[in-house]
Amino acid sequence: MAHNFAIVLYDIPSSHPHNAWSPNTLKTRYALNYKGLRYMTEWVEYPDIESVSKDIGAAPTDNKPDGRPHYTFPAIRDLSTEAVISDSTKIAAYLDRTYPDTPRLMPAHGFGLFRAFEDAVRPLLDPLFPFVLPPTQAILNPPSGAYFRHTREESYGMPLEALAPTGEAGAAADNFGKMDEWFRAGGEDGVYMMGNAVCYADMWLAAYVLWVKLVLPEKWEDIKTWHGGRWATLLENLEKYGTVV
Amino acid sequence: MAHNFAIVLYDIPSSHPHNAWSPNTLKTRYALNYKGLRYMTEWVEYPDIESVSKDIGAAPTDNKPDGRPHYTFPAIRDLSTEAVISDSTKIAAYLDRTYPDTPRLMPAHGFGLFRAFEDAVRPLLDPLFPFVLPPTQAILNPPSGAYFRHTREESYGMPLEALAPTGEAGAAADNFGKMDEWFRAGGEDGVYMMGNAVCYADMWLAAYVLWVKLVLPEKWEDIKTWHGGRWATLLENLEKYGTVV
Repeated sequence: MAHNFAIVLYDIPSSHPHNAWSPNTLKTRYALNYKGLRYMTEWVEYPDIESVSKDIGAAPTDNKPDGRPHYTFPAIRDLSTEAVISDSTKIAAYLDRTYPDTPRLMPAHGFGLFRAFEDAVRPLLDPLFPFVLPPTQAILNPPSGAYFRHTREESYGMPLEALAPTGEAGAAADNFGKMDEWFRAGGEDGVYMMGNAVCYADMWLAAYVLWVKLVLPEKWEDIKTWHGGRWATLLENLEKYGTVV
Repeated sequence: MAHNFAIVLYDIPSSHPHNAWSPNTLKTRYALNYKGLRYMTEWVEYPDIESVSKDIGAAPTDNKPDGRPHYTFPAIRDLSTEAVISDSTKIAAYLDRTYPDTPRLMPAHGFGLFRAFEDAVRPLLDPLFPFVLPPTQAILNPPSGAYFRHTREESYGMPLEALAPTGEAGAAADNFGKMDEWFRAGGEDGVYMMGNAVCYADMWLAAYVLWVKLVLPEKWEDIKTWHGGRWATLLENLEKYGTVV
């Protein structure tokens, strides 16, 4: 049977007009669009992620607090190769390796360095979560919304509504300031992380910024003024790779 | 006047037979040797770093706790270009840019990504310092030894001898395990951070491991068994770039 797409992207739907909202799957969406690869989306609610992942043969990406395997999206199934990959950064490395004639996401042999990049970024994003989790929960469809609330409340040990941050806006801005320094390093024009061409690090950060913009527009009004408008410019530059299909 | 060297490297001496011991200047030494650039070392005791830096026009690399500019080594003076650069990673970027016919330390436009790499590594190295600072102080020459003790004791708020770590050996091993994952990422053979060629990230980590090996041989006996001997192999592979001139 012929398809007019080559890759299936597994993503989590919402009631937001943009539908796609998860920063992790947005990274993969940017990557697929940037490479010009034809794909379609399979929308799966949170409670079904594990069974769908097992059905297609997607590997768990880490372990739950109780030690059981944790299955997460994005995952992709590449109908051309029959490869099934989970973990957005593994997917990016797979796409570079499998489609060498498309624009690269990472420099050759750069996967380990991007793992270090992720480890540097994650703690810097922590102050955003108390702001962004409650409005994210609010846009999910009922089965995903209940799952999201339960798992996040278990992780934080409090109701989502009690996360309401006090004075943490400054911490988020300071942390984005550290990332701004990476962009400014080296004296290049600093629009992208690696000079004049988009790379996976730009998509990684843009996906988180887009998440905030989608679910918490009033916080976005703040962020878009930070660091000379760096984050607004980044989203604008990547907008053409943000199509949701 | 003709020189048989092109670059002066400013470093801090010690009474150790290897003389060079500072992980930050060791990074630059690896880089210069790897590129095959001719250089000589100007050995400067700690209390003179600030005045020497000002004399040669090297910029401070950060601020002291009281806000005054902090001058650090390595710095280099390139007699061919009259450039003076401080900060080992800025030096690496300068050398790649200025000597494009020598082996690269970073991928093109990779400086920002290496800044992120540094931010990922630094907290992972924290558990090593309580082990390594006291024996480091012990090998310094008297003026540097007194300066080193004073500044580190002020920073930690306790005598160097009181740093003696209890149970932190495990934390260091766990943290090196996170770095081991970066090497193993991507399914390549994983000897270096970026596939089969040495890059600045390898030199960065090897410099810290070499520091421990030089000043605390008994701790090295432990570290060299970690992660399938990864850190011993890394030092062996970089040994040919470790010449101290």
